[in-house]
Amino acid sequence: MKTIDLNGDMGESFGVYRIGSDEQLVKAVTSANIACGFHAGDPQTMQATVRLCAEHGTAVGAHPGLPDLAGFGRRSLAVTPHEVYTMVLYQAAALQGFARAEGLRMTHVKPHGALYNMAAVQRPLADAVAEAVYRLDPELVLYGLAGSELIAAAERAGLRAAREVFADRAYEADGTLTPRSLPGAVLHDSSEAEAQVIRIVKDGIVRCRTGEEIQLGADTVCIHGDGPEALEMAARIRKRLEEEGIEVRHAGNVRSS
Amino acid sequence: MKTIDLNGDMGESFGVYRIGSDEQLVKAVTSANIACGFHAGDPQTMQATVRLCAEHGTAVGAHPGLPDLAGFGRRSLAVTPHEVYTMVLYQAAALQGFARAEGLRMTHVKPHGALYNMAAVQRPLADAVAEAVYRLDPELVLYGLAGSELIAAAERAGLRAAREVFADRAYEADGTLTPRSLPGAVLHDSSEAEAQVIRIVKDGIVRCRTGEEIQLGADTVCIHGDGPEALEMAARIRKRLEEEGIEVRHAGNVRSS
Amino acid sequence: MKTIDLNGDMGESFGVYRIGSDEQLVKAVTSANIACGFHAGDPQTMQATVRLCAEHGTAVGAHPGLPDLAGFGRRSLAVTPHEVYTMVLYQAAALQGFARAEGLRMTHVKPHGALYNMAAVQRPLADAVAEAVYRLDPELVLYGLAGSELIAAAERAGLRAAREVFADRAYEADGTLTPRSLPGAVLHDSSEAEAQVIRIVKDGIVRCRTGEEIQLGADTVCIHGDGPEALEMAARIRKRLEEEGIEVRHAGNVRSS
Amino acid sequence: MKTIDLNGDMGESFGVYRIGSDEQLVKAVTSANIACGFHAGDPQTMQATVRLCAEHGTAVGAHPGLPDLAGFGRRSLAVTPHEVYTMVLYQAAALQGFARAEGLRMTHVKPHGALYNMAAVQRPLADAVAEAVYRLDPELVLYGLAGSELIAAAERAGLRAAREVFADRAYEADGTLTPRSLPGAVLHDSSEAEAQVIRIVKDGIVRCRTGEEIQLGADTVCIHGDGPEALEMAARIRKRLEEEGIEVRHAGNVRSS
Repeated sequence: MKTIDLNGDMGESFGVYRIGSDEQLVKAVTSANIACGFHAGDPQTMQATVRLCAEHGTAVGAHPGLPDLAGFGRRSLAVTPHEVYTMVLYQAAALQGFARAEGLRMTHVKPHGALYNMAAVQRPLADAVAEAVYRLDPELVLYGLAGSELIAAAERAGLRAAREVFADRAYEADGTLTPRSLPGAVLHDSSEAEAQVIRIVKDGIVRCRTGEEIQLGADTVCIHGDGPEALEMAARIRKRLEEEGIEVRHAGNVRSS
Repeated sequence: MKTIDLNGDMGESFGVYRIGSDEQLVKAVTSANIACGFHAGDPQTMQATVRLCAEHGTAVGAHPGLPDLAGFGRRSLAVTPHEVYTMVLYQAAALQGFARAEGLRMTHVKPHGALYNMAAVQRPLADAVAEAVYRLDPELVLYGLAGSELIAAAERAGLRAAREVFADRAYEADGTLTPRSLPGAVLHDSSEAEAQVIRIVKDGIVRCRTGEEIQLGADTVCIHGDGPEALEMAARIRKRLEEEGIEVRHAGNVRSS
Repeated sequence: MKTIDLNGDMGESFGVYRIGSDEQLVKAVTSANIACGFHAGDPQTMQATVRLCAEHGTAVGAHPGLPDLAGFGRRSLAVTPHEVYTMVLYQAAALQGFARAEGLRMTHVKPHGALYNMAAVQRPLADAVAEAVYRLDPELVLYGLAGSELIAAAERAGLRAAREVFADRAYEADGTLTPRSLPGAVLHDSSEAEAQVIRIVKDGIVRCRTGEEIQLGADTVCIHGDGPEALEMAARIRKRLEEEGIEVRHAGNVRSS
Repeated sequence: MKTIDLNGDMGESFGVYRIGSDEQLVKAVTSANIACGFHAGDPQTMQATVRLCAEHGTAVGAHPGLPDLAGFGRRSLAVTPHEVYTMVLYQAAALQGFARAEGLRMTHVKPHGALYNMAAVQRPLADAVAEAVYRLDPELVLYGLAGSELIAAAERAGLRAAREVFADRAYEADGTLTPRSLPGAVLHDSSEAEAQVIRIVKDGIVRCRTGEEIQLGADTVCIHGDGPEALEMAARIRKRLEEEGIEVRHAGNVRSS
């Protein structure tokens, strides 16, 4: 039976500042990527978010980012591979501690924002992320953009990788995401987005921006949690996948190939 | 055979800023308390310090502090027990990750600065520290001021506690440290300080500021690493202890009682 | 003609994190206290908030706080008078720069949160705040709790002080606010709160928690902006004050005595 | 009479962390660029450094950087022009406040590290820096790499610019600095470096890495303060310049053309 994971970013509040709809999102996804205090999140938020996931049976993962709270980890920073190795290890280990304290095992790591994008295309940074995750716990699953350097690095390191796909982003013929600077990069029509993600998961095929159909393997789908519309779309995607006979479950047991 | 641990604070550099003499101090102590990024330290410094300890066979512990880099964690902050629980868990788990990545087991946790002092006298904060450490790993040893609330909290939580004593601080008749605001709080004469610490370790007795002799159990001695004089004194203390037939070894196997 | 100022805290967003209803609050008040990046706010938010005030003719002031974004500046921190002097000078000068860049003159400074409370009762800290404000610009008005050390410090320093009163807080017979730990510290009945503030402003008298009526001079009223109810209450207070023939205007020209 | 300014970076300590030799450097230079708390420095250090400059008659300037204390502001960060505008305005205004509090007038602004390098080549960022400085005070002098976008931006904004040259860096035939990745980028021979800077200042000519001689106008020379050798070299450069009949004085009165 085919399976797919739905993952969402959680625990992005900081101090008195609230962001996200974690109480709803935790029900829509099978895996939570929890911010670790560098680009968002703080120790109290991490603890509360891990507990929320425990209550709902949602798999707990670390969502390490660049040290840039003011920019929410979205601004590229010229970091070295060694800096990336240590910042990922630090953040993932911190989240692992909160999981352990709640009697859970952390299942995965997904880099956030600019770090995710940089590690998708820069092999030395991708290797640094993978090494940090492997040394922390070789059973962890590393989430990365399908077809990216991060997936290749995970496999080189001996980690299981979860290939992430997007419902609402257009793809190029080489399997990369269409840059946001190009028209049509974001699918604003929700039924089109839903159709794209169902086809990727069911058939392993996506129709590119330029019309070609290419193969695209997927282990996990990125689910947005910002606002009621995003949450409704997540629910519809989940329902459609289940109707297609695809089991929606966390990627902890996936094996990409 | 009587044993004693010598512990020192390490890994307190931050970015381009260097502090301490870790290459020397690591040889003088049996246990290293490594800063975790809140009051000092950063991920790269943590990684390098753990590796340095691994090379010298020095036991690796976490040294969590208040989130106050500008004040080096020395300024009291009105934190709740829950905030303390989560900040200790976060920092100790992060350091544990660096230990694991180097193939080591983290052995202990010692709170830093104002957090150490607050947890010495405020039972709810002491319990919060102990709970965080226990939930992370019940085999960890919790270091605290001998006779303080933190030692009592460790024991309530089911943790082993290491009772810390000081060579260069005067004691009051109730076993507490003489406040720094009183004259004679710091022993500036190094031979006097050495004699005090030898007697505490060997006989379990200290002569108080006011002249009485009281019992004071010790599992570990705080060793300063700031400057050549402190390092020389540490070497002399270690030599004297060994001449007295006391084994100097890390507190990982101590059992306070 | 009697005048009164209404002041509100603004510019408390940080990065992607939004807080407050500044677009509404700016119309309800005559003076804005703008966060300066230590407990809340960031350079972009400061710039936008100053511009918003400029558009509405609302007086612009600095709202310096403790360096504790995670705690929103509400947690007491053991800072020295010299630390307070420099942190207030730094933050107030930064805000002054944004005012100048928009062609405005910054009118006042009001410490935030724990810094406000500490400076209300600790004379050395109050003097440090006042000295920082005076040295930056002796024409600035320093806002502080009516009857507090901060008002006395402003006057010692040669600054104009604005005595702040609260609609929704009970007062003790000595003019201090009823501690929040006591029952009745907060007036939850909005008509009672409105009546209290009208009487203070109009007659200079407040009925204490314990029943006595005492004198209480007021130059400015603290207006909350968190939520629709607070904003409606602010509007009603303003209307009632104007009906009583009291001119609502900023405190830049007040002279407390 | 020909004049030249010698500028040095100061006030780069942070909390307990000490860096630099400001007590010596302040005597070697005519203009101090003082860190403003983003990449280095803190309010207490800023206050002490401004006072030190006041005692020695050294001109006081702001040295704003990227918000990256861990990286000392040396790592490029993908910031927008508006972010740069607000971060420069914030930091420069804060330093201006400390100058005013000591009875001084801040004379100049020099961006630090990656911000300096980015503004040297990216015109929108250069314009953002210049606009921030101009709006804060149009009398300020903006320091930038000779021949760079920052100098052009200063002139577009109506600011005086100070063209900065380096003793120990090689130049390309187009007037830019030889990238550090190329051999010969740094002049390790101190007499060669001294000769280069004397010739630039005296004759407006530099011999490039590739042998050509090009014109290079200079208003200020960057002086390093890290270590005894750098300070000795600074003293020798100053002496040589004075022997050549060039007046060494701050750039507050220069007029680049």
